[in-house]
Amino acid sequence: MSGLDEARNKLALANRILAHEGVLDGFGHVSMRHPTDPGRYLLARSRSPELIEPGDILEFTLDSKPIVPPTGFLYGERVIHGCIYQVRPDVNAVCHHHSRAVMPFCISGVPLQPVDHLGATMGATIPFWDQRDEFGDTDLIVAKPEEGASLARVLGPNWVVLMMRHGATVAGTYMEELVFRSIFSCRNAEMQREAQVLGGISKLTPVEIEKASAFNLEPRPIGRAWEYWTTRLRKAEAA
Amino acid sequence: MSGLDEARNKLALANRILAHEGVLDGFGHVSMRHPTDPGRYLLARSRSPELIEPGDILEFTLDSKPIVPPTGFLYGERVIHGCIYQVRPDVNAVCHHHSRAVMPFCISGVPLQPVDHLGATMGATIPFWDQRDEFGDTDLIVAKPEEGASLARVLGPNWVVLMMRHGATVAGTYMEELVFRSIFSCRNAEMQREAQVLGGISKLTPVEIEKASAFNLEPRPIGRAWEYWTTRLRKAEAA
Amino acid sequence: MSGLDEARNKLALANRILAHEGVLDGFGHVSMRHPTDPGRYLLARSRSPELIEPGDILEFTLDSKPIVPPTGFLYGERVIHGCIYQVRPDVNAVCHHHSRAVMPFCISGVPLQPVDHLGATMGATIPFWDQRDEFGDTDLIVAKPEEGASLARVLGPNWVVLMMRHGATVAGTYMEELVFRSIFSCRNAEMQREAQVLGGISKLTPVEIEKASAFNLEPRPIGRAWEYWTTRLRKAEAA
Amino acid sequence: MSGLDEARNKLALANRILAHEGVLDGFGHVSMRHPTDPGRYLLARSRSPELIEPGDILEFTLDSKPIVPPTGFLYGERVIHGCIYQVRPDVNAVCHHHSRAVMPFCISGVPLQPVDHLGATMGATIPFWDQRDEFGDTDLIVAKPEEGASLARVLGPNWVVLMMRHGATVAGTYMEELVFRSIFSCRNAEMQREAQVLGGISKLTPVEIEKASAFNLEPRPIGRAWEYWTTRLRKAEAA
Repeated sequence: MSGLDEARNKLALANRILAHEGVLDGFGHVSMRHPTDPGRYLLARSRSPELIEPGDILEFTLDSKPIVPPTGFLYGERVIHGCIYQVRPDVNAVCHHHSRAVMPFCISGVPLQPVDHLGATMGATIPFWDQRDEFGDTDLIVAKPEEGASLARVLGPNWVVLMMRHGATVAGTYMEELVFRSIFSCRNAEMQREAQVLGGISKLTPVEIEKASAFNLEPRPIGRAWEYWTTRLRKAEAA
Repeated sequence: MSGLDEARNKLALANRILAHEGVLDGFGHVSMRHPTDPGRYLLARSRSPELIEPGDILEFTLDSKPIVPPTGFLYGERVIHGCIYQVRPDVNAVCHHHSRAVMPFCISGVPLQPVDHLGATMGATIPFWDQRDEFGDTDLIVAKPEEGASLARVLGPNWVVLMMRHGATVAGTYMEELVFRSIFSCRNAEMQREAQVLGGISKLTPVEIEKASAFNLEPRPIGRAWEYWTTRLRKAEAA
Repeated sequence: MSGLDEARNKLALANRILAHEGVLDGFGHVSMRHPTDPGRYLLARSRSPELIEPGDILEFTLDSKPIVPPTGFLYGERVIHGCIYQVRPDVNAVCHHHSRAVMPFCISGVPLQPVDHLGATMGATIPFWDQRDEFGDTDLIVAKPEEGASLARVLGPNWVVLMMRHGATVAGTYMEELVFRSIFSCRNAEMQREAQVLGGISKLTPVEIEKASAFNLEPRPIGRAWEYWTTRLRKAEAA
Repeated sequence: MSGLDEARNKLALANRILAHEGVLDGFGHVSMRHPTDPGRYLLARSRSPELIEPGDILEFTLDSKPIVPPTGFLYGERVIHGCIYQVRPDVNAVCHHHSRAVMPFCISGVPLQPVDHLGATMGATIPFWDQRDEFGDTDLIVAKPEEGASLARVLGPNWVVLMMRHGATVAGTYMEELVFRSIFSCRNAEMQREAQVLGGISKLTPVEIEKASAFNLEPRPIGRAWEYWTTRLRKAEAA
């Protein structure tokens, strides 16, 4: 199997894992940089993540133009992916989602922050991007190159950006790391919300965030979680 | 297959999708205008939505009288449907439900409002109807023609109406749009409630609501979601 | 099939429905009065409700003594059932549970009250019983005849009683009504809690409660719900 | 089957029960003291609890050194187990987890306390351990012997200890008791959080906690729950 076939398989699998673990639902999407051409990225045709198969994966330039003229619909917000790959050579996988977990933060503007060692993999700073600031009253869809570029600018050197009244975008250096960070961002958000309503939050220090993130992004924790998520998905798909 | 057979199939499917996605439970119902006679509508016999098959679908006049004398029970609240079809020629599908998601708004009287681009498909104004205002102490059931007419009047030109201490009624120009709006009303309600308790809400502007609603009611998003919901239902029913 | 065999079947079925709908879990139990001898009642041997089969059902006197010497464990709290049957000849089915839904009320002492037409089937008054009032510091288990009698006294002519730091007990005139009331008590509790935290409660009036309860305890709504719950259970058990 | 084989089977089963009931997820682990050598304990290789089979179980000294040189990864936090077995000869089973239920308490610092008769099995005192107090800014992982010893010291003679910004550790005199206490700690936490947000908590008295705990740790309730959890797991694994 070629590197590109393997990449398509992994990207389709990541879509279905993130749907099965509640990060993606009918909407949202996940991409990866092309395994041999850093000037391209892979993303599915317009389809719900739970349903995506390797044959649904298409190639795009970093300007988010399809390499092969498409025969069906494309995702409207693919500039989110392309614009981040343009300015972040260290990023090789991106997930955009509107999970139930993060939305209360996106709607209220309450800052999301790491509250345990697994949430620490989000990093210390999770900026807010508000499309209104630069673009006024829009349809809230990040479809224009300048909108994607603005989002990528606010993401900056961080790993997670919250989008006001919209959702979140998560970046990773490789696919397993991205999936790990996306899932534990959602868990962190759920726990933080409940803790905050219950009685407040005892914040992690910047040093704790750095150390805990480094620990959890090692092969042992990521490998353990990856085996767990793939097995759960396989069992659910066989049922 | 005749247009009427297709309509019966689609209506039965919509019932089961809305049950599977948590909008309908043991109670609630969904109807559609007759495909060729705008003076009639289709609605199931009295049965829980999860169980409805095409053979359960009956025809009614807009006065909510059955065309064929029924052999079993009918829903008590079918005037909700008939009265809306009477005054809203643009409406061809109606859903009445008491979902867990919207009830906290119906019980507290806190206004439901769009908090993201998908919720924008509810429209900017979501009125409250209180049966008490015109009818005093009732059994809370909307069974009389004048009750249905009152509800339709408060719905007015909008797409969603909340019913105090009771539930919600949602309208659509066609079935897929109705299902989309019904499901994302519930998601919006859940997220709004959690955001409000966490720290408040940053409202969408009227222009954002209009633009985002127009974007999401295009064939691409509705088609993507429809494929997702029908596939999920088919998998669940085969399990 | 004899009336007693039918009663055993229905009671086993009710146990599994109430487990499947989230009212009962590993603990809790449901009983019914003997179909031909009003001086006896039927209750399972000590077993989790989800697992109960007709062969697990035993007979007891209203003093909660087993008619046949038992070969295994009995539920410790069966006086809850016997003591209610003693003083309420109109009651023919009883459920005792600690559902997640009602416990926040039992722990906080916040009154549970009907918030919609389905919750109205609980009745207007839902008293609190506190074992401490008469018995001081106990193991919180209602195992002694005088404890059961005290609980039945506080239940009085009502249909639901909340037990401080413990759970709830629900009564019905027949099994389908009991199941309906038990399930919609839990739904009411969940919705009331969320509404109260979101913004408060608009109470039903006593007349609305009376009228809505009468409507919902008619054969049509109860029959529709019973078909729904039994079908859902059958599907889940076949999966 | 030897005692050691039986122990491995039971430990693998306990891992999967605790995963299925929502105490453990991709992370967390459960151990038991060696059935014939109190100077050793049994714990799985580094793997998610839902996936653990008897063949994954390894033996460790109370210093948390593997008896046989491992061929793969070990859990990083096994000193949690070893250090508790060292100082608590009455403890023969330990669970460390980060369940959604307890985390709001670990994040907010709000004390967890028994709120019903089943939660009473946690005991009256549930101390907080804060790794920061003795060790400053760490990666939040309890990997060093002195960290494990510190945690065991704060646990003291109690049964549950909450770890700030991290999770919980639960101890039991035997495996079924540990599983019972772990599951009902989580249920207690969920109900306490909801009650506290709804309106506050009516605390159990120390005598009530002692009596209710003694009642629930008898063979009848533990046996009933154990049959329930093992049957539910078997059904889920067969689906």
